[in-house]
Amino acid sequence: MTQISLEHFQKYFYDNAELGFSVDLSRLSFPANFWGEMEPRLQKAFEEMAALEGGAIANADENRMVGHYWLRAPELAPDNWGKTIRQTNKQILNFVQQVHEGTIAPERGGKFTQLLLIGIGGSALGPEFVAHALGDPRQDKLTPHFFDNTDPGGMERTLAAIGDELPNTLVIVVSKSGGTKETRNGMLEAHNAFHEAGLHFGRHAAAVTEVGSALDQVAVSERWLARFPMWDWVGGRTSELSAVGLLPAALQGFDIQAMLQGAAEMDAATRLHQTQQNPAALLSAAWFHATGGKGAKDMVVLPYKDQLELFSRYLQQLIMESLGKEKDRDGNVVHQGISVYGNKGSTDQHAYVQQLRDGVANFFVTFIEVLQKRPGGEADALQVEPDVTSGDFLNGFLYGTRDALFQKGRESVTITLRQLDAAFVGKLIALFERTVGLYASLININAYHQPGVEAGKRAAADIIALQEKVLLLLRQNAETAFTAREIAAKIETQESEMVFHLLRHLEANGRLQYAGGDGVEARYRTVT
Amino acid sequence: MTQISLEHFQKYFYDNAELGFSVDLSRLSFPANFWGEMEPRLQKAFEEMAALEGGAIANADENRMVGHYWLRAPELAPDNWGKTIRQTNKQILNFVQQVHEGTIAPERGGKFTQLLLIGIGGSALGPEFVAHALGDPRQDKLTPHFFDNTDPGGMERTLAAIGDELPNTLVIVVSKSGGTKETRNGMLEAHNAFHEAGLHFGRHAAAVTEVGSALDQVAVSERWLARFPMWDWVGGRTSELSAVGLLPAALQGFDIQAMLQGAAEMDAATRLHQTQQNPAALLSAAWFHATGGKGAKDMVVLPYKDQLELFSRYLQQLIMESLGKEKDRDGNVVHQGISVYGNKGSTDQHAYVQQLRDGVANFFVTFIEVLQKRPGGEADALQVEPDVTSGDFLNGFLYGTRDALFQKGRESVTITLRQLDAAFVGKLIALFERTVGLYASLININAYHQPGVEAGKRAAADIIALQEKVLLLLRQNAETAFTAREIAAKIETQESEMVFHLLRHLEANGRLQYAGGDGVEARYRTVT
Repeated sequence: MTQISLEHFQKYFYDNAELGFSVDLSRLSFPANFWGEMEPRLQKAFEEMAALEGGAIANADENRMVGHYWLRAPELAPDNWGKTIRQTNKQILNFVQQVHEGTIAPERGGKFTQLLLIGIGGSALGPEFVAHALGDPRQDKLTPHFFDNTDPGGMERTLAAIGDELPNTLVIVVSKSGGTKETRNGMLEAHNAFHEAGLHFGRHAAAVTEVGSALDQVAVSERWLARFPMWDWVGGRTSELSAVGLLPAALQGFDIQAMLQGAAEMDAATRLHQTQQNPAALLSAAWFHATGGKGAKDMVVLPYKDQLELFSRYLQQLIMESLGKEKDRDGNVVHQGISVYGNKGSTDQHAYVQQLRDGVANFFVTFIEVLQKRPGGEADALQVEPDVTSGDFLNGFLYGTRDALFQKGRESVTITLRQLDAAFVGKLIALFERTVGLYASLININAYHQPGVEAGKRAAADIIALQEKVLLLLRQNAETAFTAREIAAKIETQESEMVFHLLRHLEANGRLQYAGGDGVEARYRTVT
Repeated sequence: MTQISLEHFQKYFYDNAELGFSVDLSRLSFPANFWGEMEPRLQKAFEEMAALEGGAIANADENRMVGHYWLRAPELAPDNWGKTIRQTNKQILNFVQQVHEGTIAPERGGKFTQLLLIGIGGSALGPEFVAHALGDPRQDKLTPHFFDNTDPGGMERTLAAIGDELPNTLVIVVSKSGGTKETRNGMLEAHNAFHEAGLHFGRHAAAVTEVGSALDQVAVSERWLARFPMWDWVGGRTSELSAVGLLPAALQGFDIQAMLQGAAEMDAATRLHQTQQNPAALLSAAWFHATGGKGAKDMVVLPYKDQLELFSRYLQQLIMESLGKEKDRDGNVVHQGISVYGNKGSTDQHAYVQQLRDGVANFFVTFIEVLQKRPGGEADALQVEPDVTSGDFLNGFLYGTRDALFQKGRESVTITLRQLDAAFVGKLIALFERTVGLYASLININAYHQPGVEAGKRAAADIIALQEKVLLLLRQNAETAFTAREIAAKIETQESEMVFHLLRHLEANGRLQYAGGDGVEARYRTVT
């Protein structure tokens, strides 16, 4: 293996025994003057972070405070928010206790056995990650399912997996704004499934949303089981430790107090203004080094632990939506960001370590090691070779791969957790939330808005409106078959190509009839 | 929306009504002379592909033929391989029929209800993709589970999900070489679980491997239920349509004849030497344009269909392991490849379209559209708004996002499938296998070897050997606690850092005792 002296290693090894956590930057090749040059930027980042935690309008574009750190330290929250946070967490624990005891029960009696979470993006990625990371079929109090898209085929399959347990299914609809179309559609599809089974949806549903939102109003009018608040100072991608994540986690049976406590402990460690003692500061500087402060390299996330398989998907949103910005805070066009991908090791070694070692040098790796390989350790575990366990191989592959990459100049960071439980999930989330926040300061961007997501939604709405016009025209001329070009002329739009795509979509779903012709010259008429 | 004339669109729109399939390159901005300059390279690629299909030693480094196309066209296979392929497929169908009928039955009687596939990389990614794409809890004949790693915690959870059904579980161990450590470990862990339940593993197991491999020998000696062959002319990442993928697919209840037929039809279309009539040629040229022929941009794969959620993981191996090469076929150092990531739309829009639209312009998108949004279409589907279905939104988000990206100069390819069933899964696999092969010719690399994967495995083996020495020393000095540095000196290795990592791993798993000290100065002794 590549020789690194223990002294060099030690210099780049942050170890926090109390947190059971370490960060190893020894496989990054920092220039000699790197840390000296970073220090003023980091000090500025610490100051901005302190202001943010103090209640400054850190998300200037949207004129909002950024308060996700208060969720696990209510005593730091300004105004009266600390009290509100504590009340909400108490409300969650009370509701969950009643569900588990059966005092809040399904319409037809018995107990809730299944949990269907309907949400997308920040309202699903955290809950999905945590459900997978901490879930265990031997212990889960409710079995989790998700509607995280507007694919009707996908929703049908999820309902099929719930099967006969639909009457015992508790539905949580999560949408901060209450206006997300995918989530609205999912709610209506679920509503319909309950209705067809002769059940009242509201007697099986709870909402997590901003007070007064469209979703909140539905929940009130249909007398849902419960409503839990979201606040405008919690962004979707940092909402896992609000009701968005805590409610489903507690329902599945996880210790949400431990999650909050773990996050609070990591927050305390990452609040320090001494760079070398602050693991998030070290990581943010590592990102700056590895990507040139410009996203010049992708971040490949390789946790060597099956439970962390969905972590990179969670990080894709947290990192890419926070950092992927056109302009910096001074209005300069910068096209920032860091691309994130990865699944798990050693599995991914067999998919693409070939390219990582030999191919395009366009990445750095974030290895995540979990020391405890199975609950209770491996002292009495099966030996796959004399004195060697499956977990020894997992460890060997991580450090072996790290070395094989470093031999070829491919850099990596290694994060080590003592074990993986609710507290460590909280620590991981807090670590990356803080790293993203500090890194955003280093590159001078607003990490808390997402101005680029509206254009696609607007275009989708235009397409839905165009489809209405197409269907109307064809119904009004039920005897006639038209090409896309003819329809576009009739309804006076330039969008003849989009009309063509709509015609194909509608025909394949039994809502138009094909009437001859090839490709863009194909004709369609209304179904008679 | 951005205006593209129907004429321009038509020029870059490949449509094959017979295949129910189209490729749209209209959102790539090709230079005027692009296709003329590509044509000689493409003609050379067609010739190389024809030689490969004719049985040439296309994988020169490993002195092997490359025969995955023969799997669905046995009549094209050289020597006597066609007969062998047909026999194997018949053997699979016979075995599966007997399992489904219960004539091949579990040790304690009844029928097999669960399927546990043990494999990794090319022996798992295809089966996992297909199990998820075509699986349906309402219809599956066996419920699939996977060991795809050497994480003991992950294996325990999979066994927990199987639970009381272990006696009715059929295990397939898949390893071409029969020597992959993760798969060997998984087999031993499963063996142990059956043993602890008082069951004979061999009476529940089948192997897919090369005749005579270590795995094959175990299967013979333990009298497993069946053995299915792999051949040296099928690479792991192109083995989905060999026994590796066909056996689990058929066991789950899928129509593998349709998969093979779909692939054969796509093969016929992608065998043409006319660039504009060959969708794989068009795609390979599109990759060349989008990445500069050097992997300068990542490929973001966004299928708007939940069933295709694992397709990008399958493509990560197929594309990155095939193309990620240090040297071209003439020995020049080129560091080739294309990085691949993505999950599904519209879900991923809510994760990172912010960065795609506004941030680093380091990617192109491959949209995958499935026209039929649910089985049977949506004529009678729930309307989420008057005359609008959930599937209409899925369609709107795809084309809306594509347009939002194109407005900002972000390029994309759109692949459209009429529906998603076994035949279309075969078509998709065949399309990308051929595209990878043609693209490799365009950039003059060997797509069929993987010389970069050995270094990590060797380093892992070194680490396992080092661990043995560490454990031995500590046992021989049971009274003494050592630091990593002291141990390294005693066993005469320079690897003191790796010894430190091993000590932490062993202690966290109950196999060493911590005896004071911080960080790299911590002391450990053997467990007494």
